[in-house]
Amino acid sequence: MITKINGGVCAAKGFTAGGIHCGIRKNRTKRDLALIASEVEAAAAGVYTQNLVKGAPILVTKENIANGYARAIVCNSGNANTCNANGIEIAKQMCTVTASALGIDPTDIIVGSTGVIGQPLSIEPIEAHMAELAASLTADGSAYAAEAIMTTDTKMKEVAYSFTVGGKECHIGGIGKGSGMIHPNMATMLVFVTTDCAISPAMLQKALSEDVKTSFNMVSIDGDTSTNDTVAVLANGMAGNAEITAEGADFDAFCEALGAVTREICRMIAGDGEGATKLLTCKLDGGKTDEIARTVAKSVICSSLTKAAMFGADANWGRILCAIGYSGADVDVTKIDVSFASKAGEILVCKNGAGVDFSEEKAKEILTESEIDILVSLNDGDKTAVAWGCDLTYDYVKINGDYRT
Amino acid sequence: MITKINGGVCAAKGFTAGGIHCGIRKNRTKRDLALIASEVEAAAAGVYTQNLVKGAPILVTKENIANGYARAIVCNSGNANTCNANGIEIAKQMCTVTASALGIDPTDIIVGSTGVIGQPLSIEPIEAHMAELAASLTADGSAYAAEAIMTTDTKMKEVAYSFTVGGKECHIGGIGKGSGMIHPNMATMLVFVTTDCAISPAMLQKALSEDVKTSFNMVSIDGDTSTNDTVAVLANGMAGNAEITAEGADFDAFCEALGAVTREICRMIAGDGEGATKLLTCKLDGGKTDEIARTVAKSVICSSLTKAAMFGADANWGRILCAIGYSGADVDVTKIDVSFASKAGEILVCKNGAGVDFSEEKAKEILTESEIDILVSLNDGDKTAVAWGCDLTYDYVKINGDYRT
Repeated sequence: MITKINGGVCAAKGFTAGGIHCGIRKNRTKRDLALIASEVEAAAAGVYTQNLVKGAPILVTKENIANGYARAIVCNSGNANTCNANGIEIAKQMCTVTASALGIDPTDIIVGSTGVIGQPLSIEPIEAHMAELAASLTADGSAYAAEAIMTTDTKMKEVAYSFTVGGKECHIGGIGKGSGMIHPNMATMLVFVTTDCAISPAMLQKALSEDVKTSFNMVSIDGDTSTNDTVAVLANGMAGNAEITAEGADFDAFCEALGAVTREICRMIAGDGEGATKLLTCKLDGGKTDEIARTVAKSVICSSLTKAAMFGADANWGRILCAIGYSGADVDVTKIDVSFASKAGEILVCKNGAGVDFSEEKAKEILTESEIDILVSLNDGDKTAVAWGCDLTYDYVKINGDYRT
Repeated sequence: MITKINGGVCAAKGFTAGGIHCGIRKNRTKRDLALIASEVEAAAAGVYTQNLVKGAPILVTKENIANGYARAIVCNSGNANTCNANGIEIAKQMCTVTASALGIDPTDIIVGSTGVIGQPLSIEPIEAHMAELAASLTADGSAYAAEAIMTTDTKMKEVAYSFTVGGKECHIGGIGKGSGMIHPNMATMLVFVTTDCAISPAMLQKALSEDVKTSFNMVSIDGDTSTNDTVAVLANGMAGNAEITAEGADFDAFCEALGAVTREICRMIAGDGEGATKLLTCKLDGGKTDEIARTVAKSVICSSLTKAAMFGADANWGRILCAIGYSGADVDVTKIDVSFASKAGEILVCKNGAGVDFSEEKAKEILTESEIDILVSLNDGDKTAVAWGCDLTYDYVKINGDYRT
């Protein structure tokens, strides 16, 4: 049994966090440097973008947690430190500067950057303000860190749960940021999760790698897989449970709690997609295989035409059939049913691949809500999938037509 | 040597065309039914959408030209006749009605429909006005047909060339329509091409199937592969050349002329994408294989973030690197150069995968033009590719947020 709690990445014992404005961004009221630290060494796991163009921080992080452990996470916004000739060097300097302030080893740092690609990142503001940031670390600083990693996000994203492993109360919490260039493949945007549950690095990585298949890999804002996607988890063991080193009930309990955190962040990221006014959730059942179920659900969520129709509250279900048809999955289109649902009700619009009579007025009412479920039944098996996305709006174009200036 | 001429689908000898308002659309000033006819039996070839959800007209057309010959093309706009229980029946009735008016066999008809998916198409307005349409066929009616197949297109698309095969002057011309749900895979939207060149059905199909790989399959407006994409060619042999029945100089001459028509229609369709203000052409060189070159060029053109940046005349080349990186193609990102070009000049923005100093002012000037070339050098081989797309604008969202009403 898991229970929602407060505290974000500081909900777990032994974790502190903070976020300040160090000057990477011009806007002095926007925090741009986040730090999360564990009192003790923590098992570490990460998943990263599959984009061949990888942000320098990812390369450094991979190296640093290759031994399965880390102590802190440092991350800036305002600059992705990607496609820069000196990227690796700067990412390593971020580790050195952070480690020095915390009195730990530079190879125990997970480093992240998010923002514009291809503009050199100066270490100066980071170096100049690291002592201040380290001094500001507190057990209620999760929100500051969450704010400091935001780019075009309009809402801060943090969540935490308590759960029980081997009779011990454990805690897990995370922060995340979207909100454009979001079409994760293997990992996503930036999400940092902390837990005091004791779990070995290998099992932590296994839990995370499995989780992202049905969490972050099922989110899409705009089909653009970022160069810097990273999900990292630190588990410091301070809950005092017997370390999880194999599959079993304890591992399952941990995975359930991890999934609760990641799925909630998925919803937050999708609902706060660039320019979005609506969270779209495609809930699919009746798939022949998991792969087919996921491919179809994600194709629906990715369709620009479907996204634009949802923005307009237009029950144009033909676009959903179209997106299913080009998904590449092997489906029988003559068996497909589609409904729309929201808190205003549910309405069937397509049965066996063809339209049915429905009330346009009722459909409009359902689609005018801010959280829309697109229910797809393939009627071809028993596999299910959920994918999260958002509508395509004028503001997405506005934000991305002039992002750098 | 090929020469641009007037006449569209009527440029070739023995072809007439027409287009009228029959009443499928409410707007009485918009033509919605097109007809193209050949005086004599013509070799016929087609390529179609790879979407599993296929418009009923495609299924009927495939059957009708399975023998390699056809005489006429009928096509309506305003309704896609797709995902309707009686779709096949209606598509066949369109053939019967047309054949009866022309005094030809119903199985000699290529039938097409474009518009909203999932709303039953009534045969009544088509039947009621077919005699009028057949009577209106003229050798200068190409523009009427081109207009009648338009949906959200803002510009009519027709083109024609003359060329020489075996000493005989031949003609080839086409009409096409976009302009949303355009991400062809195997074929595209609706494009009808006519020629008086004598060529066997098998060689005509071969020429067309080869051509679309580097023409329509390299166009994307919005990543949504339509259910009704069709490119059909009719070759009636009235130019009097010795029939092309094998590869060789004559076949090459025909392919060159076909390519001139299809590439020009590609540019027209991309430049007139829904809401588009700019034609984007990604010209790629230095690819290791044709497949890599095409995959990368198309990925650049498909990126929502790149498209939005081009709308904003923002030289945000990091998004282009990002799109190359997630394309799935095997490239060395440290070798990639990127430039932007237009009639206002050319500017290098990325060298060896990293940014170079460039004048933002000059870049803005280049990107403010209505036709932008994105030049990508992979520096990893000698293969080239060209892909066509358009910017992502407020109007794309507007058009698709409320298409049905």
